[in-house]
Amino acid sequence: MKIIIVALGGNALIKPGEIGTSEQMINNLRAPIKQIAELSQEGYSVIITHGNGPQVGNLLLQQESTEEVTQMPLEILVAETQGQIGFLIESTLDEELMHLGIDMEKYFLTVLTYVEVDPDDRAFKRPTKPIGPAYTRRKKGYVKTSKGWRRVVASPQPKRIIQSREIKKLMDEGFIVIACGGGGVPVVKNETRFHGVEAVIDKDLASAKLAEQVGADILIIATDVEKVALNYGRVDYKYLDRLSVSQAKEYMSQGHFPPGSMGPKVQAAINFLEAGGKKAIITSIEKIKDALEQKAGTHFYLDGF
Amino acid sequence: MKIIIVALGGNALIKPGEIGTSEQMINNLRAPIKQIAELSQEGYSVIITHGNGPQVGNLLLQQESTEEVTQMPLEILVAETQGQIGFLIESTLDEELMHLGIDMEKYFLTVLTYVEVDPDDRAFKRPTKPIGPAYTRRKKGYVKTSKGWRRVVASPQPKRIIQSREIKKLMDEGFIVIACGGGGVPVVKNETRFHGVEAVIDKDLASAKLAEQVGADILIIATDVEKVALNYGRVDYKYLDRLSVSQAKEYMSQGHFPPGSMGPKVQAAINFLEAGGKKAIITSIEKIKDALEQKAGTHFYLDGF
Repeated sequence: MKIIIVALGGNALIKPGEIGTSEQMINNLRAPIKQIAELSQEGYSVIITHGNGPQVGNLLLQQESTEEVTQMPLEILVAETQGQIGFLIESTLDEELMHLGIDMEKYFLTVLTYVEVDPDDRAFKRPTKPIGPAYTRRKKGYVKTSKGWRRVVASPQPKRIIQSREIKKLMDEGFIVIACGGGGVPVVKNETRFHGVEAVIDKDLASAKLAEQVGADILIIATDVEKVALNYGRVDYKYLDRLSVSQAKEYMSQGHFPPGSMGPKVQAAINFLEAGGKKAIITSIEKIKDALEQKAGTHFYLDGF
Repeated sequence: MKIIIVALGGNALIKPGEIGTSEQMINNLRAPIKQIAELSQEGYSVIITHGNGPQVGNLLLQQESTEEVTQMPLEILVAETQGQIGFLIESTLDEELMHLGIDMEKYFLTVLTYVEVDPDDRAFKRPTKPIGPAYTRRKKGYVKTSKGWRRVVASPQPKRIIQSREIKKLMDEGFIVIACGGGGVPVVKNETRFHGVEAVIDKDLASAKLAEQVGADILIIATDVEKVALNYGRVDYKYLDRLSVSQAKEYMSQGHFPPGSMGPKVQAAINFLEAGGKKAIITSIEKIKDALEQKAGTHFYLDGF
C-alpha cells in the first residue's frame, strides 16, 4: 500500500480576509479532507500534516494579554495547536469518511508529535518564521513580511521526528494519521530528556523528514497556488509543470522561491527526493487528486529519472 | 496482558500554592509517571488519562483578555489542553522509560480524544465544573467553591469515547497511550458530523467509560489523598480501605463525597465495576504502585465479590 503524506498549508485553514474562527477553518478544510478521504478509500495509506503559523501566533498574543495566569513557552503553544487543529481536521475527516460510508472501516488518529532540532541551529540567532496576525502598521519587535508586519520566531531544521516509529507502526496497521502539526513541537535532547525549545519548525520541512523516516512514497505539499512559478507575482511569471532537483536548486539560488513562502516548500520536495522519496508534488489544496493523476501541480524529479 | 488506566488528577500537575508553570507541571508529573513507566516494564498495558481544570480555564481567561484575535469555543480549548498536557506527560514518560533503559522497546503516543455527550444532558442547564484560577473575592459570573471563587461550566456525562476502537488497537499492539485528556473534547452527533459543544467532561467519568470500552482490567484514580474518607475535613473523619459499590452509593447519598471533588471519582469507580471492570482504586499520585499491591488506597468491589 502506497504511503502518501499530504501537508496542508495554513491557507488550507484560513483564507484571505478571514479571521480564522473555528467554523471558517472547518469550512476551508472540507475540500482537501474530502479528497484525502477518497484517497484512503482508493487504497492509499495517508498521513496528514498541517501548518499553524496564524494559530500559534494567536495563542502567543492571547497569553501575553493578561498577567492573571502563567504563560507557556512557545513550544507548548505549538503542542496546543496540534490539539486545536488536529480536532478540526479529524472531525472533518470523520464526516467525509461517513459520507463515503467507510468511517467504521477506517482507523484514524491525531498523534502529538515532537521533533528534534539542533540546539546550535543558526536559526536561533536569526528568526525567520512569521506567526500570528499581520498588522498594516509598523509594530515594535515585529518584522515587515509580504502580508504586513508580523512577529517572527526561530525556525530550526527538523533533524528527527521522535514519533516516527509509532507513526510507521500505525501505517502498518492501516491507520490514517494526523501528525507533525505545526511542524511538530521542537525539542532538543539533553542527556536523558527532550526539552522543548522556543521555536516553530517549518511544517513542510518536517513533513519531508517524516516522509523519509516512515518510508513514504509520495509527498504532496498543498498550498494556495496550483503550481510553482518562476518570477511569481511579476507579469513575466511562468508556471512549472515539472522541475528537476538540480533545476529547483538553481532557481532557488536565483531567488525565485522566497524564504517566507515557496522556498521551504521547494526545499522540502528536494529533501524528500534526495532522501529516496519517489514523488514530490506542490499544488493547491483543491487539486490534490488531480495532481496525483498528473493533471495539476508542479512535479519534482531527481535528475536522470 | 492486563490493561490498567491511570487517571491523573489536576493536582498531579499543579500543587497548592503553585501557578502551574510548565516546569512545575513537569516536576509534579515525575512521581506518578515514574511509577507508570515501572508498571509498563512489569508487563502492564497502561493508558494514562488526565484532568485539565486549571489549564482550560487559563486558556479561556487568556483568550478573553484580547479582542485582537478570534476566540475558540470551549471544546477547542479542551483539545488544546490535550496537546499541552499530553506533551508534558509524554516527554516525562520518555525520560522515565530512558532511565529504565526501555524507551526504545516501548511504543507510546498521545491520542487526541473526543467524547460523545447527550445534547439534552441536564448538565447544560446546570453548570457544575470549576475551571481556571480561584479568586479570594467575589467575581461576577463566578461561583464560590472550596478553593475560592471560580468559573463553572457544564459537565455532561460521557456516553462514548469516539477513539476507543483506535485506542484498543494500540493496546493490542503494546502501546502506552495518553488519552482522554481533560475528559475528552465534548461532541454531539448531528447527522453526519460530530459537533463540539461548550463543556468540560469530568476526566474520571470519561476514564471509567474508556476503561469499559477498551475492556481494561484496573482503573486507578490518582489524586491528592491516599484514601477516600467519610466525614472528610472533620475531626471524626475515617479513611476507608475497602468499599463495596452499595456502600459507596449509600455514603454518596449521605453527602460524604461532594460533587466538586470526591463525588465523580467514587462515581467513576462504581460505573467501572458495574460495567464489568475487575478492580477500581482511588489513591494518591505517590501511591499508585503501593495501591496495586494492596498497601494503599481505597479499593472498591462489587457486592458479593
